[in-house]
Amino acid sequence: MKLLDGKMAAEAIKKDIMSDVDRWSREFGRKPRLAAILVGDDPASHSYVKSKENDCRQVGMESIVYKLSATISQEGLIECVKSINEDDGVDGLIVQLPLPEHLNEQEIIETIDPDKDVDGFHPLNVGRMVMGLPSLVAATPGGIVDLLDYFHIPLQGKECVVLGRSNIVGKPLANLLSRKGYRGDCTVTLCHSRTLHLEEITRRADILVAAMGQPLFVKADMVKEGAVVVDVGISRVENKNTKSGYKLVGDVDFEEVAPRCSYITPVPGGVGPMTRVSLLKNTMLAAMRRNLGPI
Amino acid sequence: MKLLDGKMAAEAIKKDIMSDVDRWSREFGRKPRLAAILVGDDPASHSYVKSKENDCRQVGMESIVYKLSATISQEGLIECVKSINEDDGVDGLIVQLPLPEHLNEQEIIETIDPDKDVDGFHPLNVGRMVMGLPSLVAATPGGIVDLLDYFHIPLQGKECVVLGRSNIVGKPLANLLSRKGYRGDCTVTLCHSRTLHLEEITRRADILVAAMGQPLFVKADMVKEGAVVVDVGISRVENKNTKSGYKLVGDVDFEEVAPRCSYITPVPGGVGPMTRVSLLKNTMLAAMRRNLGPI
Repeated sequence: MKLLDGKMAAEAIKKDIMSDVDRWSREFGRKPRLAAILVGDDPASHSYVKSKENDCRQVGMESIVYKLSATISQEGLIECVKSINEDDGVDGLIVQLPLPEHLNEQEIIETIDPDKDVDGFHPLNVGRMVMGLPSLVAATPGGIVDLLDYFHIPLQGKECVVLGRSNIVGKPLANLLSRKGYRGDCTVTLCHSRTLHLEEITRRADILVAAMGQPLFVKADMVKEGAVVVDVGISRVENKNTKSGYKLVGDVDFEEVAPRCSYITPVPGGVGPMTRVSLLKNTMLAAMRRNLGPI
Repeated sequence: MKLLDGKMAAEAIKKDIMSDVDRWSREFGRKPRLAAILVGDDPASHSYVKSKENDCRQVGMESIVYKLSATISQEGLIECVKSINEDDGVDGLIVQLPLPEHLNEQEIIETIDPDKDVDGFHPLNVGRMVMGLPSLVAATPGGIVDLLDYFHIPLQGKECVVLGRSNIVGKPLANLLSRKGYRGDCTVTLCHSRTLHLEEITRRADILVAAMGQPLFVKADMVKEGAVVVDVGISRVENKNTKSGYKLVGDVDFEEVAPRCSYITPVPGGVGPMTRVSLLKNTMLAAMRRNLGPI
């Protein structure tokens, strides 16, 4: 069993991004810039945005955070998004989710210029991705494909089972992996809460991706000997043996499952770092596309 | 074995559309209108557009065809699409494909107002469909879901195998059938040219959809006893026993496969009529959404 070490892969990708940032900055006389809109005082959201700022700094990109009051109106937020859309000095724009309840998230997402939508949540980017057209791909599915690619996991013709049909992981990943081409060509089955005989289906998987957000759900008898297992989940569970009193676990019962796998992602340190680096990759791509035309 | 009679289902759906057309026309003082752009002199394209005009007439809708020279420039065609986008008297707009080779189809499709895109080919509609948001769904996948619905085929938790990953049938259908809700909730596997052990996979299917465009490809030993089989293919093959010297066949070897099925679509008369009626349904939906707000 080998670990799909997301930290290692992310570091390697960051190096590529740094050299792109450097080249781009010299050519255009400024650094690529990511803008983040942060609404309200949710501590988790603040901490995520802070990490994204740090990540930008690490690869030499600029970031700018628009901190808005939790009481901002839908119209006010839309105006803010539109003004950033039109700001030529901004290459990528994210709106940190979730938004306060009185705001319509979907409308905000669809207000973002699709060419700056580095979270890849705009339906135009989703549609273009599904159709195999140039697009900005959501960070987690994009990061998973990069991780498999980094470790040279063969994909073509492999049976891939994706657990969970969320709009930000399961559905886009199923579409990505079944696309034509060298980073796709899997035969993908998408499973969800209504799937029957789940263990039978997961045992077919050469590549099994768990993304349903249920801690320790995938057990050894659900996994084929030699499978590649990617764990997207990350939850805190109580654990008396740790100092903090809790432990981070994924959707896969790592201790049980790992011995059966050819490759498996650790949690933490697997998909998480890949998701983070994907945002940087998308920001660089958005900057390049804006200035150099489609790639 | 029962036939999934697309003609019968399409007639029933047409009746619903007719009553919607009638109600809408009385409320808004005009009939819903479909515009078609037809470029050049391809006889097949002319004949398809003629059928669409007839279909509109049958349900009481208006149609208008813009016949453009095969030598029209990309810019000229874009101008034409934009002027129809802005025409308040037009509810749905299709550009008959294929276009002459010097034209960029994808750019033309993306110029169509997504709210009038009754072919459902605009990536914004594809993305919205995948994400479970209100959208206009491409005619063939939409028609297949309607056909299964009309014959009360249970979908929830069923294993569905889709053969072929085209942007107009296989991919959108796989996404539709795996969506949350009563016309979805299947466990879908999307197969394609790179899929290995295909017969093994097709034999798992409770619902098997053949949409790869290879005449008579699906044989009896690829189908589970009692499966529901939907055949999207339609090809002419030589046949000395018919007056015309040819016969229309699907991607499924009907004579071999039918005895094993609980339900199967005939070819012709299965998916074809459903595809045609879906265009009318989308046009009606586009008209209603424009005037009554989202449904």
